[in-house]
Amino acid sequence: MIILGVDPGLTRCGVGVIEAGGGRRLSFVHVDVVRSDPSQSQDLRLLKIWRGLSEKIDRFAPDVVSIEQVFAQHNVDTVLGTAQVAGLAMVAAAERSIPVAVHTPSEVKLAVTGNGAAQKIQVERMVARILHLNKLPQPPDAADALAQAICHALHPSGELQGGERDQHLTAAQRQWAVAVQKSRNASSKMRGRGM
Amino acid sequence: MIILGVDPGLTRCGVGVIEAGGGRRLSFVHVDVVRSDPSQSQDLRLLKIWRGLSEKIDRFAPDVVSIEQVFAQHNVDTVLGTAQVAGLAMVAAAERSIPVAVHTPSEVKLAVTGNGAAQKIQVERMVARILHLNKLPQPPDAADALAQAICHALHPSGELQGGERDQHLTAAQRQWAVAVQKSRNASSKMRGRGM
Repeated sequence: MIILGVDPGLTRCGVGVIEAGGGRRLSFVHVDVVRSDPSQSQDLRLLKIWRGLSEKIDRFAPDVVSIEQVFAQHNVDTVLGTAQVAGLAMVAAAERSIPVAVHTPSEVKLAVTGNGAAQKIQVERMVARILHLNKLPQPPDAADALAQAICHALHPSGELQGGERDQHLTAAQRQWAVAVQKSRNASSKMRGRGM
Repeated sequence: MIILGVDPGLTRCGVGVIEAGGGRRLSFVHVDVVRSDPSQSQDLRLLKIWRGLSEKIDRFAPDVVSIEQVFAQHNVDTVLGTAQVAGLAMVAAAERSIPVAVHTPSEVKLAVTGNGAAQKIQVERMVARILHLNKLPQPPDAADALAQAICHALHPSGELQGGERDQHLTAAQRQWAVAVQKSRNASSKMRGRGM
């Protein structure tokens, strides 16, 4: 199974592709960052990211696209652009009838390192170890996209959402997580895809 | 000139189309709401809106797509979905090389009614009057999309952004507006489209 992970961002959008074989064996396929120019207008920047993501999805034909959950409470200067890029990734997948999964940053860190509040370097090292890379994933800030894909491979149904993860959430994130969980329950009932 | 106005929303996305002739004469072309089913997952809902918006843009071939500005501080339950729909409208326009404009709700109310804090019913009545409609625009909540298009026809460069408009902004909105203005200045320098 091919999993394409997305770490959404308007200036830099991480894309990481892995293959999940039998016995939870995971192997590295691709990692890259799709960029847009901050001096351009919002519509042209989103178009650039849209084309980049569409090209990656066409090239790697993933079985699932897994996208980092965006929280409304995050950095107010960038959250709308980040949410817009996450939305584009969803539509690019949905247009091709590819299932979409969403995992929070804490879920991803917990799945990859065993610690939902792990530092970035810990995540990078564990991504390299899990995927048998000789050095840390390059470019470094695309490691999150590979981590997102690994998280989905190990915990496709988001079973990390209970107790342990919640320890790492702020009150606002916890409130948001409850809303997310509600909407996930509603949508998994509708779709029955087990995401 | 054909102007397609968008009032972004994930459950209900208003679309209003007008034609702007000589001497600021404006005429009604089309109004509708593109809907998505709240019980479906986010990716399928966004796909539904994406297809609906793309179909409207193809059908009416506007010279400009004018979209309501989304504020990060607005309703935390819906702001990310609203921003995602605004992003889809931008990409649908940009893919077809159609210029995109953005006007805030206060700018739109001010342009249409002369009062940046006007009530919804006042906006609906003025939209009907300006477009010579015999009754209020239907469906009623798509009036904002027509108002958005009218605002762009009357004030394409957003010259309402100074003094009078600012009276109606909260501190957070004002802060946001400054950021928007900065990015507009940067992008209009880059693009030179006079928006």
